[in-house]
Amino acid sequence: MYSYWRSSCSYRVRIALAHKSLAYTYHAVSLLAGEQTEDGYTELNPSKLLPALVLADGTVIGQSTAILEFLEEAYPDAPKLLPEDPLARAYVRQAVAMIAADIQPVQNLRVLKYVGMDRKIEWGAHWIATGFDALEAFLAKHAGNYCIGDELSLADACLVPQVYNARRFGIDVETKYPIIARIDAALNEIEAFKAAHPDNMPDAQVSA
Amino acid sequence: MYSYWRSSCSYRVRIALAHKSLAYTYHAVSLLAGEQTEDGYTELNPSKLLPALVLADGTVIGQSTAILEFLEEAYPDAPKLLPEDPLARAYVRQAVAMIAADIQPVQNLRVLKYVGMDRKIEWGAHWIATGFDALEAFLAKHAGNYCIGDELSLADACLVPQVYNARRFGIDVETKYPIIARIDAALNEIEAFKAAHPDNMPDAQVSA
Repeated sequence: MYSYWRSSCSYRVRIALAHKSLAYTYHAVSLLAGEQTEDGYTELNPSKLLPALVLADGTVIGQSTAILEFLEEAYPDAPKLLPEDPLARAYVRQAVAMIAADIQPVQNLRVLKYVGMDRKIEWGAHWIATGFDALEAFLAKHAGNYCIGDELSLADACLVPQVYNARRFGIDVETKYPIIARIDAALNEIEAFKAAHPDNMPDAQVSA
Repeated sequence: MYSYWRSSCSYRVRIALAHKSLAYTYHAVSLLAGEQTEDGYTELNPSKLLPALVLADGTVIGQSTAILEFLEEAYPDAPKLLPEDPLARAYVRQAVAMIAADIQPVQNLRVLKYVGMDRKIEWGAHWIATGFDALEAFLAKHAGNYCIGDELSLADACLVPQVYNARRFGIDVETKYPIIARIDAALNEIEAFKAAHPDNMPDAQVSA
């Protein structure tokens, strides 16, 4: 897998891989150094974004949500992150899209660069807060111990990386989003989530 | 279904519903008038975005990609928009996310308003072109008659509405993106795609 320690899209996939105990080789691509726009990587993933998963036969899947769904289907005997019930699956995917479509793409590095780095914090915080306002209201209806009921799901694999980003943008998650904060705290106690944490990646920077 | 004629996320779902011959009641929500932020709608969908699908028992699903996956699973006897092969499904979902995460959310109305309407065309065209550059390269590897091989898929249901948006932002799709343009032209000949077109919606505005 091609990953960057602080890429929240990579972090989602790392959580799923750890939850399913699927071993993989970690290839670091530095977003800060712009390595995602270099030829070697863009041949694998023309989106110039992380992550990308290269299978044993050389086929490549980009886009974290496509990878997450693929892992569910390709490893049916591994621990699941999608429930059986169609409506519960829909709620999981709704929560995933609320993060993976409505929040993260609007606050990612390439958009921040285009907006102008002087507006970086204000812009990122605005869109994360807009998305978390919606997500908190949604979770008030659907959450149990985790995002959708009491079973771990893809929504949880997306939530923790987004909360990690939210804190980097100075959002007071505990005060403003108590449900999100409660679930995030519970998730961060789970081994798979710890194993996937940015600080535990080989390309983590202590000083950053 | 709650929809707006020019909402590309609504348009995706309308295509899938038409392809599957699923009847539904059309509730118009005017994005231009800001009706998606009014209490009646936000109780259904806290994201304040379109579309939302309300099932016969009153349960609500927001987020177009969650609705599209739900329709696949809830109506297994209807014509499919996901192939059987896991890798082909992954490619379909990758193309979906390239549009539904990387392009549309960055160029939608609320982001344009926040950027400032004076930058509207430049901003929207930039992000659609960035996304289409990637998508054209991806389709060069995976397309047949349609986005992924020769079978209609969710990727096609997402492509046509995004090309519709691209033209509104002045992008010369035919010249710059020949594969996207070819597939879009073929898709627009199909009855389900015609039936879902913005101009054929009850809230379509002739003068807009």
